[in-house]
Amino acid sequence: MIMPTSINVALDAMGGDHAPGEIVKGAILAMNQNENIKICLAGDKGLIEKELSGQPYDKTRLEIIHATEVIETAEPPVMAIRTKKNSSIVLGLGLIKEGKCDGFISAGSTGAVLVGGQVLVGRIKGIKRPPLAPLIPTEAGASLLIDCGANVDARPEHLVQFAQIGSIYMENVVGIKNPKVGIVNNGAEEEKGNALVKETFPLLKSCPGINFIGSIEAREIPQGKADVIVCEAFVGNVILKLYEGTGATLLKMIKKGMMSTTMAKIGALLVKPGLKKTLKAFDTKEYGGAPLLGLNGLVVKTHGNAKATEIKNAIFQCVQFKEQEINEKIKAKLLKG
Amino acid sequence: MIMPTSINVALDAMGGDHAPGEIVKGAILAMNQNENIKICLAGDKGLIEKELSGQPYDKTRLEIIHATEVIETAEPPVMAIRTKKNSSIVLGLGLIKEGKCDGFISAGSTGAVLVGGQVLVGRIKGIKRPPLAPLIPTEAGASLLIDCGANVDARPEHLVQFAQIGSIYMENVVGIKNPKVGIVNNGAEEEKGNALVKETFPLLKSCPGINFIGSIEAREIPQGKADVIVCEAFVGNVILKLYEGTGATLLKMIKKGMMSTTMAKIGALLVKPGLKKTLKAFDTKEYGGAPLLGLNGLVVKTHGNAKATEIKNAIFQCVQFKEQEINEKIKAKLLKG
Repeated sequence: MIMPTSINVALDAMGGDHAPGEIVKGAILAMNQNENIKICLAGDKGLIEKELSGQPYDKTRLEIIHATEVIETAEPPVMAIRTKKNSSIVLGLGLIKEGKCDGFISAGSTGAVLVGGQVLVGRIKGIKRPPLAPLIPTEAGASLLIDCGANVDARPEHLVQFAQIGSIYMENVVGIKNPKVGIVNNGAEEEKGNALVKETFPLLKSCPGINFIGSIEAREIPQGKADVIVCEAFVGNVILKLYEGTGATLLKMIKKGMMSTTMAKIGALLVKPGLKKTLKAFDTKEYGGAPLLGLNGLVVKTHGNAKATEIKNAIFQCVQFKEQEINEKIKAKLLKG
Repeated sequence: MIMPTSINVALDAMGGDHAPGEIVKGAILAMNQNENIKICLAGDKGLIEKELSGQPYDKTRLEIIHATEVIETAEPPVMAIRTKKNSSIVLGLGLIKEGKCDGFISAGSTGAVLVGGQVLVGRIKGIKRPPLAPLIPTEAGASLLIDCGANVDARPEHLVQFAQIGSIYMENVVGIKNPKVGIVNNGAEEEKGNALVKETFPLLKSCPGINFIGSIEAREIPQGKADVIVCEAFVGNVILKLYEGTGATLLKMIKKGMMSTTMAKIGALLVKPGLKKTLKAFDTKEYGGAPLLGLNGLVVKTHGNAKATEIKNAIFQCVQFKEQEINEKIKAKLLKG
C-alpha cells in the first residue's frame, strides 16, 4: 500500500490585517478538509494557542514555532530580514530552507516576503530572477500575471524564463492545457513596443515548449485573451494595482448609484443575489495568493486583508504545487535549456 | 466694442466608426451652441454635403476641404502620412500648419494623428517630446494621464516637461487650481521605482511652479489622488487601456448578473436610472478627446467610436485651449526654464 505523502505548510501567523485569528482559522479549515496537510504556525505562541483553544482539529498535525518578533509592513525589507531573526517571516522561511516544510504563506509585508524568499530560501539553480505571479480574475476564468515582484527593469532573458515558468504553473496547478502566453504591449502589431518588449518578442517567438500568441494589449487582459501574461515587474505592479483599484472604485460607485433613490434601493435588493454570484468570479481572493516562483520551495503572498478562506485556498495551492511536482518540472525545463 | 475672436476648428470628417455622420452632427451641435466657432470639415465633399443637407446651421461658418483619400487605422502611420497627401488627416493638419485653424480633431488612426501632428504641425520650440494626454474619469472628477503617446522609453527630462505642460492644461482648460502632480510608481516610498522613476523623482521635487505630491500607486489613480499623473508612454498606454478594459468587462458582468434571474431583471429596471447617472461620471466620452500637447496648435484624438456629443465636447476643448492661451503659457514656462 502506498502511503500518501504528507504536505507540510508553514504559515506566518502574525502577518496581515486579521492575524492571528483568520490565519489560524484558515489553517484549521484546510487541515479538516485534507488529512495529508500538516501545518506549522510561526508566531506568538500564547496568541496562537488562544485562537486554537476550543477549535476542532487534529493536534498531531499542527505545530507552533514560537516567534518573538513581527516584521511590520512599513519596515525596509532588507534590514528587517537581516535583523529580525526571530520574526514569524524569518522563522517560517527557515522551515523551507531546512526542508521541514514544502511551502510558506504570509499575509504580511510583501517586501519582506520577497526579499526573505530570495535570500533565505534561495533560487533553483539556473533561475535568473524569481517572479511574483498572482492569478487575476478575467471574464474567461483567471490569468497568471508574471512578474509583479520587487525587482524592476528586467532583461529579455528574464521575461523568457517568466513565460516558461508561468506556463508550467498554469498547466499543472491551474489545469489549463497548453496555456496561451502573451507579452504586454502598447499595440497589437509586431513593430510596437518599448526597447525591452522589442528585444524579448523574437526570443519568445522562437522559445520551444511555450504557446506564444504574441502581444496582448492591456484592454484585452480582463477579457482573458492570454493565460500567462508576461511583463516586467514595474508594469505588472501597475496592472495588478490598477485592476484591483478600478474594480473597487467602480463597485463603490455602483453601490452609491443603487442607494441614490428609494426605487433604486428596492431594486438593489432584488438584484443582489444574481449580482453577487457573477461578481464572485471577479474576486481575486478566490485564487489564494501570489506565488513567488523559482525558489527551492513555494513561497506564497496573500492579500494583507486575507481572511480564513483565502488562507485555506493558499494552503491548497501549496498542496497542488507539491503534488504536481512543479519545481521538478521547472528544473527539467531549465536543464533542457 | 471688442469683437470676440472666432475660433477655427478643423475636423477629420472621415475618421472613426461613425464618420462622416456623427462628425458632421457634432460640428453642427457645437456651432449652434457657440457662434464664435468656425468649422473646416476635411473629407469627401459629396458625402459631407449629404450629411449636411437639411440640417440647420450657419453656412458662413462652415467650409468643406475636399479630401480624396482616407488613412485606415491599420495602415503604418509614417508611410500613410508621407504618401496620402490628399487624406482628411494630412489636409486637416495642414490647416493648422498654415495658421488657418487653431485646432484639429480626429477620431481616426491614432498613429497617423500622432505622427502627423509632430511631422506636419511641428513642436513648440523647446518641447522635447509632445505628449498625448487624455483625461480619465475618477471618483473625484478627472485626472490628466500624461503621456499615453506613441513614443516610448522617455527620459527624465521628458517626464519633467510632461508635469509642467500637464499642470498648465489642468489649471487652465479643466480649471483645477494648483493641480497635484504625481508620478506613477510601484510603491509609495521614495526609494521605490524603476531606473527612470528614481532619476525623475528628485527633478520633479525641485521643479519650480508645479505642485508635486510624490509617487502615486496605480490603485490610487481611480480615487483621483493626483490631478496630473505623470508616466512614460508605455506605462500610460497600459493604464489607459486597462482602465477602459476593466470598466467595460465589469459593467458587462454586472449586466449579466442583473439578467440572471427574473427577480434580478425586475430589480435592474428599478436600479437603472440612479445607476446610469452615477456611472455617467465614469464615462470617458464626457471629456472630449485626448490632446496632443506641445505642438504649434492643438491636435485632439477622440475615441474611434466617438459620436456627436464627444465631437462637440472636443470642439469646446479647442475653444477653451485657444481662449485660455495655453500655448502662450507653455512658451512662457519654457522661457523661464
